[in-house]
Amino acid sequence: MAERIAERLRALEDREAIRDLIARYGPLADSGDAAGVAALFAPDAVYAVGGMGEAKGRAAIAALIDGPVHRALMAQGCAHVLTSPAIDLHGDLAKARCHSVVFAREGEGWRAVRVSANLWELARSAQGWWVTRRDNRLLDGSEAAQALLDSRNP
Amino acid sequence: MAERIAERLRALEDREAIRDLIARYGPLADSGDAAGVAALFAPDAVYAVGGMGEAKGRAAIAALIDGPVHRALMAQGCAHVLTSPAIDLHGDLAKARCHSVVFAREGEGWRAVRVSANLWELARSAQGWWVTRRDNRLLDGSEAAQALLDSRNP
Amino acid sequence: MAERIAERLRALEDREAIRDLIARYGPLADSGDAAGVAALFAPDAVYAVGGMGEAKGRAAIAALIDGPVHRALMAQGCAHVLTSPAIDLHGDLAKARCHSVVFAREGEGWRAVRVSANLWELARSAQGWWVTRRDNRLLDGSEAAQALLDSRNP
Repeated sequence: MAERIAERLRALEDREAIRDLIARYGPLADSGDAAGVAALFAPDAVYAVGGMGEAKGRAAIAALIDGPVHRALMAQGCAHVLTSPAIDLHGDLAKARCHSVVFAREGEGWRAVRVSANLWELARSAQGWWVTRRDNRLLDGSEAAQALLDSRNP
Repeated sequence: MAERIAERLRALEDREAIRDLIARYGPLADSGDAAGVAALFAPDAVYAVGGMGEAKGRAAIAALIDGPVHRALMAQGCAHVLTSPAIDLHGDLAKARCHSVVFAREGEGWRAVRVSANLWELARSAQGWWVTRRDNRLLDGSEAAQALLDSRNP
Repeated sequence: MAERIAERLRALEDREAIRDLIARYGPLADSGDAAGVAALFAPDAVYAVGGMGEAKGRAAIAALIDGPVHRALMAQGCAHVLTSPAIDLHGDLAKARCHSVVFAREGEGWRAVRVSANLWELARSAQGWWVTRRDNRLLDGSEAAQALLDSRNP
């Protein structure tokens, strides 16, 4: 019984840790915390940003946050809004799927300038869960973007 | 003590299962997985979509996703964004309230074409939690839509 | 072992309670439940709303919901959309950071009229977790708003 309870507890903790990790992305990005964003990822992780190429490794991921595109967006006024993910746990690996919306200040309001599908691949490390790959693609009608959200894909 | 712990664990698992179920709706809808969307619902469930009538049963719910309105929206580029729900557990039944926003691609950005209140009624089945009824109503000033979000309603 | 399990369970319950509390804000606000919104806060809590001053105490917080600005927004059609928060637990205190977006009905769609950073300070009370302070600031390029989301701040 105690063993079974420890196992159920761990499944809940894993899901909580993964949700927490993804919930941190937006606040870290919008406060310009490049090192904090990079630390969500494994050292050799890949972050493929729809329409903007692929960042490989923590230094490249941090450079996205410290770079001119993101800095200009922060100065304009922006929000990286992510939804609560659908998480599939497989032992020490996991996949999570969610939407992200980037709002940018425009006139008296904000405009959704990026609306994307996101597939996160995660792994349990000695320091807890981290992201090994994040694919982000614009939901502009592209089937490749829709496929990221498709749980029928292996 | 062990019994009390099992009970607390189960309450957390119930809430996690319900949140997970609702988190799956958006990715399933935006990847066009009609059978996956239908499987979130009980066989005789009702899904009342604000301004678009009522779908009763899994085949009718799947037809919403396979139908021309949803398929055209997917081709245009869309995202069904749902917020993390406020969940009220009552034994083997539950209610959950959240917002949903449908973004559609327009010009160089995306526009919020539907912003709705959602009330989910759920039940524990032999296969886990499923939705027995979902009411969705546009937040266009209508008091009926506001009432869906009102936890003072029984 | 049993003690360690009770402790892990309580950490999960604390996080669940805080997430639930924040998930209730939007539905309570958009159903005009002023007393319900006020009850999320400690009796002497402060809610500082970006660009709109500071409400101190439950009566003042309820007055925000019952007041003419919020009532006009409800009549126009609105949604207070909050993201799932990043939560930092410190015993009987906690901080949570998230985004909020207020959509208002306009023409045939909805416009994001407020996009904000939110820092929630929470405390465990005899009645469960409640909010002791919420700071909300518009993400219009202001560094003060970005700072609310910055977990490097103490």
